[in-house]
Amino acid sequence: MPNRTYRITEIVGTSPDGIDDAIRNGVSSASDALHRLNWFEVVEVRGHIHEGKVSHYQVTMKVGYRLDE
Amino acid sequence: MPNRTYRITEIVGTSPDGIDDAIRNGVSSASDALHRLNWFEVVEVRGHIHEGKVSHYQVTMKVGYRLDE
Amino acid sequence: MPNRTYRITEIVGTSPDGIDDAIRNGVSSASDALHRLNWFEVVEVRGHIHEGKVSHYQVTMKVGYRLDE
Amino acid sequence: MPNRTYRITEIVGTSPDGIDDAIRNGVSSASDALHRLNWFEVVEVRGHIHEGKVSHYQVTMKVGYRLDE
Amino acid sequence: MPNRTYRITEIVGTSPDGIDDAIRNGVSSASDALHRLNWFEVVEVRGHIHEGKVSHYQVTMKVGYRLDE
Amino acid sequence: MPNRTYRITEIVGTSPDGIDDAIRNGVSSASDALHRLNWFEVVEVRGHIHEGKVSHYQVTMKVGYRLDE
Amino acid sequence: MPNRTYRITEIVGTSPDGIDDAIRNGVSSASDALHRLNWFEVVEVRGHIHEGKVSHYQVTMKVGYRLDE
Amino acid sequence: MPNRTYRITEIVGTSPDGIDDAIRNGVSSASDALHRLNWFEVVEVRGHIHEGKVSHYQVTMKVGYRLDE
Amino acid sequence: MPNRTYRITEIVGTSPDGIDDAIRNGVSSASDALHRLNWFEVVEVRGHIHEGKVSHYQVTMKVGYRLDE
Amino acid sequence: MPNRTYRITEIVGTSPDGIDDAIRNGVSSASDALHRLNWFEVVEVRGHIHEGKVSHYQVTMKVGYRLDE
Amino acid sequence: MPNRTYRITEIVGTSPDGIDDAIRNGVSSASDALHRLNWFEVVEVRGHIHEGKVSHYQVTMKVGYRLDE
Amino acid sequence: MPNRTYRITEIVGTSPDGIDDAIRNGVSSASDALHRLNWFEVVEVRGHIHEGKVSHYQVTMKVGYRLDE
Repeated sequence: MPNRTYRITEIVGTSPDGIDDAIRNGVSSASDALHRLNWFEVVEVRGHIHEGKVSHYQVTMKVGYRLDE
Repeated sequence: MPNRTYRITEIVGTSPDGIDDAIRNGVSSASDALHRLNWFEVVEVRGHIHEGKVSHYQVTMKVGYRLDE
Repeated sequence: MPNRTYRITEIVGTSPDGIDDAIRNGVSSASDALHRLNWFEVVEVRGHIHEGKVSHYQVTMKVGYRLDE
Repeated sequence: MPNRTYRITEIVGTSPDGIDDAIRNGVSSASDALHRLNWFEVVEVRGHIHEGKVSHYQVTMKVGYRLDE
Repeated sequence: MPNRTYRITEIVGTSPDGIDDAIRNGVSSASDALHRLNWFEVVEVRGHIHEGKVSHYQVTMKVGYRLDE
Repeated sequence: MPNRTYRITEIVGTSPDGIDDAIRNGVSSASDALHRLNWFEVVEVRGHIHEGKVSHYQVTMKVGYRLDE
Repeated sequence: MPNRTYRITEIVGTSPDGIDDAIRNGVSSASDALHRLNWFEVVEVRGHIHEGKVSHYQVTMKVGYRLDE
Repeated sequence: MPNRTYRITEIVGTSPDGIDDAIRNGVSSASDALHRLNWFEVVEVRGHIHEGKVSHYQVTMKVGYRLDE
Repeated sequence: MPNRTYRITEIVGTSPDGIDDAIRNGVSSASDALHRLNWFEVVEVRGHIHEGKVSHYQVTMKVGYRLDE
Repeated sequence: MPNRTYRITEIVGTSPDGIDDAIRNGVSSASDALHRLNWFEVVEVRGHIHEGKVSHYQVTMKVGYRLDE
Repeated sequence: MPNRTYRITEIVGTSPDGIDDAIRNGVSSASDALHRLNWFEVVEVRGHIHEGKVSHYQVTMKVGYRLDE
Repeated sequence: MPNRTYRITEIVGTSPDGIDDAIRNGVSSASDALHRLNWFEVVEVRGHIHEGKVSHYQVTMKVGYRLDE
């Protein structure tokens, strides 16, 4: 196996429905825009509150992909 | 835009059903008791285990609101 | 109440469906193999991405149980 | 069991005698002033030194209590 | 010297002009609304960017005050 | 000196009397149940509060011992 | 509101004059070179010292922008 | 692929020769004593100094293995 | 000296031989693919274990380069 | 009040009796050897275990003193 | 270039005027008292509050200098 | 055994050859200049890159020694 190199970048996925869905949305958008992603790691979970209810979940993730592919 | 000031306090929301639901329960209770909340940030996710099953999720969050509203 | 002592160990639960499910799977397997668990605390949430979609969630947790039971 | 919500606030207890005593003093004062407290967690231990001796221990703690009680 | 107890809360001060000014604004507003404050500690410095310029600085601070005064 | 290997595990010692005593209780129980321990390191100090008084100190520690003894 | 995705990258702004100015310089350069930025968060403040005086402030920041704009 | 569960434990590998060798020694000893290991993660690098020279490197690692294999 | 701006990105270098070699491999690949790099900072050291031996070292690094060059 | 400057150094105090005593011993020795100390802050609490009992507490502290006195 | 060694120590600079000024004051005093300093890194920003106004900024910094110069 | 006190200071060792060598160089220089050192702990590993190659490794370490010897 050759010595692979990976790059890691940070994204924020969002969803009104929950944390899992925010992860899926962020991974899906970043896959379109960036590269073929291999893994993610959650860095932070935040969100907006409107009239006593969670209106939006925001999940900051590191995502990694092969640099030399 | 005037120079707004916000206050942040920490709450623990709980639920038998999952993390998203514990966040929603905590935000809802804190909105009644405290103030009109603007955002949350997850600090810790813990829970109780009973007979090999998760019986309760506990999500510690920071919640922020306008101090001068 | 006597002075109880607890032990904490670290596990990784996995699921294709989401974070809550990965926690439940890890807690269930660890309860079989280790001891009667009392609580968990999430340490890290990661996962694999395959063709632009999350294929697997991995949740690292600390789990605690009575040492002297 | 209903879905309880807790609030966490941060206090600093002090004592000339030691860490345990500073915790007890802080918990006792905060119980008078704030609410019926359920748990504490030590965040930081500091103190003043005067003429080569510790003159005061300061223990910063998070204390938690039921919000909806 | 009696055994004083202090309480710590978290605020966010804001300013279009810079970090020092955001601290001053936050401390000033919190002094009106909360209590007689004794000290602050910066936790986080963030801000908004609009058309390539910093439009607002946001400084999250812990502020401490005597609980038993 | 051969190349020794050590293992580290995490325990929680408890006591109604104070932090030092909780450490001693945890170390004593873990020495019975686990192995011949060589060192400890405090990770977290928490406790329960009952009617405005500390009812129990809980000290989470890492404890280390020779793996190959 | 659609489910927006953001990307976060890290930059270092510098200035001989102070922290606020280093932030402004970094944000301004990065806005030219990268994308339309929405927010920043200070990660680290360092600097060079020459003959007993600060010769340069270096502020490491995370900056975020819409990925799907 | 079934939902695998992993366990993580912490070890300290040592060597007079360097960090890589301390990792290899720790992994080798732990593989004998514990289980079939899958991965490691370095937590801390320390060592002893004797007469101005490094006499021993100590590398604390987390090591992971399948719980349900 | 003008006010330079730098950008920092995260890469993972790998090697079967050791940590220094994984750093060198990652830096070399990233220099081809990205930009003229100025410095690196190690963030994490992990690796795979196969049949009781380290089969691969993975070193996550931040690497920095001039944005405005 | 002139603009005072302080210096902070790190010491380890030890005691067979407990954490408070280890702090007092370290502060007392450092006051002899170093300078007139003003404050301390606990960084780490560790200790040795011998035959199932704590034989020595080690408390790492930062201690501060006026540089320009 | 020979293999230089540097030493890092921690200082606290203070000022009634702001963070930049506290850094400059601390660096200036430490340059007189200690050694020829090469760089600084901010560790903590705190301050005193008096009658609702910031009366003093305190900036804790690590400062580095050549050991073998 | 009397109650020993230790002091900890921070150094940066450098080498063109690798991390182990940078540790050895730093420990050797600091032993000449400072005191009889007892242990080290790695805090940070960084380095310079020149034309796509690592030109210098910099290892920041805490080193400890007896204060009262």
